[in-house]
Amino acid sequence: MFNDTIAAIATSPGSGAIAVIRLSGKESFNIVKKIFTPKKGKLEFKAYTIRFGTISSDNQVVDEVLISIFKSPNSYTGEDSVEISCHGSLFIQQKILNIVIKNGARLANPGEFTQRAYLNGKMDLSQAEAVADLIASESASAHKIAMQQMRGGFSSELQELRSRLLSFISLIELELDFSEEDVEFADRKALKNLISDIQKHISKLINSFELGNVIKNGIPVAIVGEPNVGKSTLLNVLLNEDKAIVSDIAGTTRDAVEDIISINGILFRLIDTAGIRNTNDVVESLGIERTMNKIKKADIVLLLIKAGDLDSKQKISEIKEKARGKHLIVLINKIDTVKNDVDDEFINNEKIQYIKISAKYKINIDKLNQLLIDTVNYSSLNKNDTILTNSRHVEALQKAYEASLRVSQGLETGISSDFLAQDIREILQYIGVITGEFTVDEVLGNIFANFCIGK
Amino acid sequence: MFNDTIAAIATSPGSGAIAVIRLSGKESFNIVKKIFTPKKGKLEFKAYTIRFGTISSDNQVVDEVLISIFKSPNSYTGEDSVEISCHGSLFIQQKILNIVIKNGARLANPGEFTQRAYLNGKMDLSQAEAVADLIASESASAHKIAMQQMRGGFSSELQELRSRLLSFISLIELELDFSEEDVEFADRKALKNLISDIQKHISKLINSFELGNVIKNGIPVAIVGEPNVGKSTLLNVLLNEDKAIVSDIAGTTRDAVEDIISINGILFRLIDTAGIRNTNDVVESLGIERTMNKIKKADIVLLLIKAGDLDSKQKISEIKEKARGKHLIVLINKIDTVKNDVDDEFINNEKIQYIKISAKYKINIDKLNQLLIDTVNYSSLNKNDTILTNSRHVEALQKAYEASLRVSQGLETGISSDFLAQDIREILQYIGVITGEFTVDEVLGNIFANFCIGK
Repeated sequence: MFNDTIAAIATSPGSGAIAVIRLSGKESFNIVKKIFTPKKGKLEFKAYTIRFGTISSDNQVVDEVLISIFKSPNSYTGEDSVEISCHGSLFIQQKILNIVIKNGARLANPGEFTQRAYLNGKMDLSQAEAVADLIASESASAHKIAMQQMRGGFSSELQELRSRLLSFISLIELELDFSEEDVEFADRKALKNLISDIQKHISKLINSFELGNVIKNGIPVAIVGEPNVGKSTLLNVLLNEDKAIVSDIAGTTRDAVEDIISINGILFRLIDTAGIRNTNDVVESLGIERTMNKIKKADIVLLLIKAGDLDSKQKISEIKEKARGKHLIVLINKIDTVKNDVDDEFINNEKIQYIKISAKYKINIDKLNQLLIDTVNYSSLNKNDTILTNSRHVEALQKAYEASLRVSQGLETGISSDFLAQDIREILQYIGVITGEFTVDEVLGNIFANFCIGK
Repeated sequence: MFNDTIAAIATSPGSGAIAVIRLSGKESFNIVKKIFTPKKGKLEFKAYTIRFGTISSDNQVVDEVLISIFKSPNSYTGEDSVEISCHGSLFIQQKILNIVIKNGARLANPGEFTQRAYLNGKMDLSQAEAVADLIASESASAHKIAMQQMRGGFSSELQELRSRLLSFISLIELELDFSEEDVEFADRKALKNLISDIQKHISKLINSFELGNVIKNGIPVAIVGEPNVGKSTLLNVLLNEDKAIVSDIAGTTRDAVEDIISINGILFRLIDTAGIRNTNDVVESLGIERTMNKIKKADIVLLLIKAGDLDSKQKISEIKEKARGKHLIVLINKIDTVKNDVDDEFINNEKIQYIKISAKYKINIDKLNQLLIDTVNYSSLNKNDTILTNSRHVEALQKAYEASLRVSQGLETGISSDFLAQDIREILQYIGVITGEFTVDEVLGNIFANFCIGK
């Protein structure tokens, strides 16, 4: 337990109808006693109750507030905690925070409430990290992954790996005690199967990071095509699909240069669209850096072609070449302007996905949205599979995987029990780094420094 | 009571550690029953208690939340209410609000919670208006006035005026019943005294509006002077006095063109400072519009003069002329550069306040701050006198005052009881307009439309 009591404004900075100031630590109740007067009756600190009253300082009423009482260990941090719900003016928020600090609390560091929750055993480290992800989540899919992780899905998966390894390691360590006698308590074949199982499992988790990463940050999409082929019209149509959510997100948390669209709860990041809007890059001069760079950064490439364009075959071939390994979708735009447009047979032979659209008249935009969604490995999302989004976790799992390779090699070559035990311990340790059973202060500091204040 | 249940995000828009979604109305508990699952035990709606659990939709957990239960009539609105405290991501806030609405609530209009509080008799109209002022309060003084009004200081003052008038009016109306007999139940002399008392009281309140208005919006201060006399240095020094608070305010709620400084909790609005910083307006050419406009808009004029400036007498006289009726303070700057600077005797004869300062070396800036503070009628602020800040209240009081003049004239001329009664009723009615005893829907609509959503 900690000796100091921390405080912070926990609601979004700015003025609103109400704001919440959070207090946690041993002195929480004593501090509240000094500054809060209940409207009726005596002030008692009964867990999970609310009281109405006033906050005063220097005999001046500062605000009428509600206080919510949480008692150790049944609070977010595991400590005695109070939440003061006040009128949401900037002045009042700041004033109450100052009063609380003047009466013995200390301003909390970013993430310090959650750090205390972790250090007091209320959650493991991967769950604590998921809290930050949850707060930052901007889309249904990112939210779902963070929620699953916060609620312990990932942790229990790791816990299972651990316990299976632990049962073996105790047997192997028993062998060490009898090392003179050359006995094998641990069944080598079963261990081999287990390690192979674990490797498969870890690989799957590591591979999920690619999906997790795009879900968290948005799947990068490049829109390429000649001038006047309708790129900006298409862009506007895409952006309008979910305007309210999109503008909220773009304005508050994203670099303004990239437009983010959300389709069915999946974020797509339109690459360098600000550039696209003003640019004059021509498909003919595909060698130019701009287009190549866009394609290089993208997972999905949308090639916009004008219906009836006689050179379309050549352009498609050219881009297909450049976008090797990417998901290429050809959009034949302006189908409203011509009757017989493109050589379907040619595109079909080339085995490229394509749709005929009209950005202007919004024809087949729903089909385009569906195609974009289909590029995502949606099945993993729906099956409640664990999806990694945190590079720290991936790094730890990669090291665990390397250690597991040494174990399997050792089993092949019949390595001695003590080396085997050491490698298995290493797997356990790297898994423990994720949940926070093994940590160094520096890592902790980095993790919680990225939180917002008040959480 | 209302039939529909309203909901809104009550905390500042944006993402934070936590956010609060507010529900009020008959169906609040039923809606929560449908979407909330407590972590432990059965869900009961006990007043002033908190429960921890999950919000779900379509069998998917959306968030782990705390819910706070308020039961009619002991809630802010006077209705059954629930506050849902969730993780503060934009996505989660919006999602929970949507779930609540899908399950039977309606999105609240701005100020609708407070409007219900008023209509359910939890507060009168002037108190409800003070809630909005409190949330918007940016300085200690504005906060103090709003707090006093919200806690009913102004209301009880009006209540007292009302009750004194009411006792008279019942006597006068008794006279009407006996109008054939020409009796006087109401003591005309006492009534005259009362009306005179009331007129004094109302005048004082009306006059307080000037102070109230500047406290709410900041006291306009013009800084004038020649180029290179140190205006921008002075400005920076003034702004730095309370930088943290100032930048918060300036960034979020103010027009960027005006700088706001807070000295001892009083706001000062520096007029057209953006202009001052770039301008080349010269005191010699005082006829020019710029300087005149600045002075016209100001309550306080700071004239900056360079120490040792040989033409200072002329400049001071010129500005004194232009700033007639304003509070003029001459600042003799750069006193670090010269020994014997200005003709003190001259300024003293002119009866102008002046200080010798060095903006660069921050000499006597504290004295300047004190002088600025002294221009405010601070005594009213300290004596807990009621200070009006709302033009609607002033307008109503002005009409009440006019009616009171008709009463005193009527008493002089010995007007008949029925006319007297009518004028007194009119005073009562205008006072009632402030507290909301007499209102029309249109006025109500205007008042609450200026609230933020969620309050």
